[in-house]
Amino acid sequence: MKELVLTGANHVDLLDKNQPKLTDGEALVKIAYGGICGSDVHIMCGQHPTAKPPFIMGHEACGVIDSIAAGTETDLQIGDIVALHPVRQCYVCDACHNGLENLCDEIKICGAGIDGFYMQYKAVPIQRLVKFTQCKDLKLCALAEPLTVAVHCFRATSMKPGDSVFIAGAGTIGIILAIMARFYGSRKVVLVEVNSDRIEIAKKFGFDVLDGADPNVVETAIASNNGEFFEHTFEVSGHQSGFDNCLKLTKKNGYMIQVGMPPHGFEIDIDQLIYKELTMKGVRHHRIDDMVMAVKIIDSGLLNDQLINIISDVYKKEDSQEAFKTAINDKTKLKVLIDFS
Amino acid sequence: MKELVLTGANHVDLLDKNQPKLTDGEALVKIAYGGICGSDVHIMCGQHPTAKPPFIMGHEACGVIDSIAAGTETDLQIGDIVALHPVRQCYVCDACHNGLENLCDEIKICGAGIDGFYMQYKAVPIQRLVKFTQCKDLKLCALAEPLTVAVHCFRATSMKPGDSVFIAGAGTIGIILAIMARFYGSRKVVLVEVNSDRIEIAKKFGFDVLDGADPNVVETAIASNNGEFFEHTFEVSGHQSGFDNCLKLTKKNGYMIQVGMPPHGFEIDIDQLIYKELTMKGVRHHRIDDMVMAVKIIDSGLLNDQLINIISDVYKKEDSQEAFKTAINDKTKLKVLIDFS
Repeated sequence: MKELVLTGANHVDLLDKNQPKLTDGEALVKIAYGGICGSDVHIMCGQHPTAKPPFIMGHEACGVIDSIAAGTETDLQIGDIVALHPVRQCYVCDACHNGLENLCDEIKICGAGIDGFYMQYKAVPIQRLVKFTQCKDLKLCALAEPLTVAVHCFRATSMKPGDSVFIAGAGTIGIILAIMARFYGSRKVVLVEVNSDRIEIAKKFGFDVLDGADPNVVETAIASNNGEFFEHTFEVSGHQSGFDNCLKLTKKNGYMIQVGMPPHGFEIDIDQLIYKELTMKGVRHHRIDDMVMAVKIIDSGLLNDQLINIISDVYKKEDSQEAFKTAINDKTKLKVLIDFS
Repeated sequence: MKELVLTGANHVDLLDKNQPKLTDGEALVKIAYGGICGSDVHIMCGQHPTAKPPFIMGHEACGVIDSIAAGTETDLQIGDIVALHPVRQCYVCDACHNGLENLCDEIKICGAGIDGFYMQYKAVPIQRLVKFTQCKDLKLCALAEPLTVAVHCFRATSMKPGDSVFIAGAGTIGIILAIMARFYGSRKVVLVEVNSDRIEIAKKFGFDVLDGADPNVVETAIASNNGEFFEHTFEVSGHQSGFDNCLKLTKKNGYMIQVGMPPHGFEIDIDQLIYKELTMKGVRHHRIDDMVMAVKIIDSGLLNDQLINIISDVYKKEDSQEAFKTAINDKTKLKVLIDFS
């Protein structure tokens, strides 16, 4: 089989490798598509603290079960379409005992701390696979992981029917959060973004998208929400300005979810937190249970007309270098997939 | 009757005034005791942004119902012992519609934005009074308001049986929070405090109290919690060091409650929030419903042996200037009460 190896800074090679041998409780998944995420871009560009060449990236993938280790008890069957969950956990720490594998003391992330999914066949513990029961469109199935991020983020809120949502950052995750907000009964979804290409893309999804360069963006956001603050805000940009905007725009008793990961800390106007009794939560990765729900939502088909437009380009595995070039440089693109078939 | 008027910087005078006339729905409360809070000290010292002389301070008080406006429908009766809730609300804003009068757009606080309780007779809307059914000790009843702060703070958490609690700041509120934590099933309560007098006082309540000057206070706190982080932390000091300590010491998936009000913003190591998926909440004042519970707890008698030790001194109303001098300067004292009888 082939696997895509980061062999040097900004360079990937498609190399030959023996198919993985299964150990007890594993299934061999024939990878269909792998998505390129912002964190893959960071690794590719040498900006990740630990993931260095030679390394196999990829934490977004779907595929088809090719074989299952003999004697493994599972309802999964050969031919099932599955999403792969990238978190590997220790099962014995406090977080694992609480079902919070995303906070595991010994957490390992496929495609970050350990080798990822950019290969033709991946051996995966069956408990880290989620089966699609309805959706047969493998490109859509490849969006299970980013949709899982949105499920996890919204589960951190206290969304009620009609609650308005503000999102700082209109990249792939920002837009998927916006799609989820609309699905989840938000009466108004407003995004802010500094990149003009992304502003145009996000508008095509039917959202209000404000220009982050507007010095009055806070007032503009409130005006676009009928003069009201937002019950829920999501900081996805990782920038101080996004953080400030979310803090200012969150309504009294509202929730602010920190999704973006800034290189440094933030300054916080703590009065905003106190006087408005805000709840500010950080989110890290997601859990298998979040992915189970993301897969159910894709299986429902309710969002697929929107989600399919998240996919901007699909490259053959042989063109992965080009795929990364697009993902890194072309802000008119959202999700870039690599076809590993 | 007499009322205690802030007539100039650091100066109060006991002046004559006609007893208030009741309007519909009000009760006249004969004030028994008024407590001096840190915010009263700020007002006294001229550090409050809006409360300037001439002004009547006091948002902590209990008393006895002296009369009720004719035609008022209420179960309250003359002679009832009551706690006075200091928040006055508009009833029509979004926060009020949600039962969050502490976040009312037009909130007025007795003893801060509007005249307070430091007087012999106060006219109070009956819906801002909470009746004691068991406790007859008026000094204990005067602690209803600070205990209400603690109820409100813990209601902002997700305390589960045995959860450990860390508190930055061992003044009156810090110690009452610690008492509440122990009552509420915390297996371990640890405070940190910089003032040596307060460290000694807090230790007398049976808590672990660490010296904030210890450069290894985070490690010491973890060691004193059997090597574990704390499920819940409360930042009461309003200092960056307290904020940093709480952020570091909160366990993954834990809650950090911001109680203290710093003069400026904080710097926040946002990675702590993200990587530990913390929930950080600000709290502001409290609600009548919180006070109803605080009064029930005092009526239960379960904490009264501890709470009575919160009261360090009781001054006659004629000695109020001296009472404030003690509250301002003497760090060996916790709550100072003024007897308005």
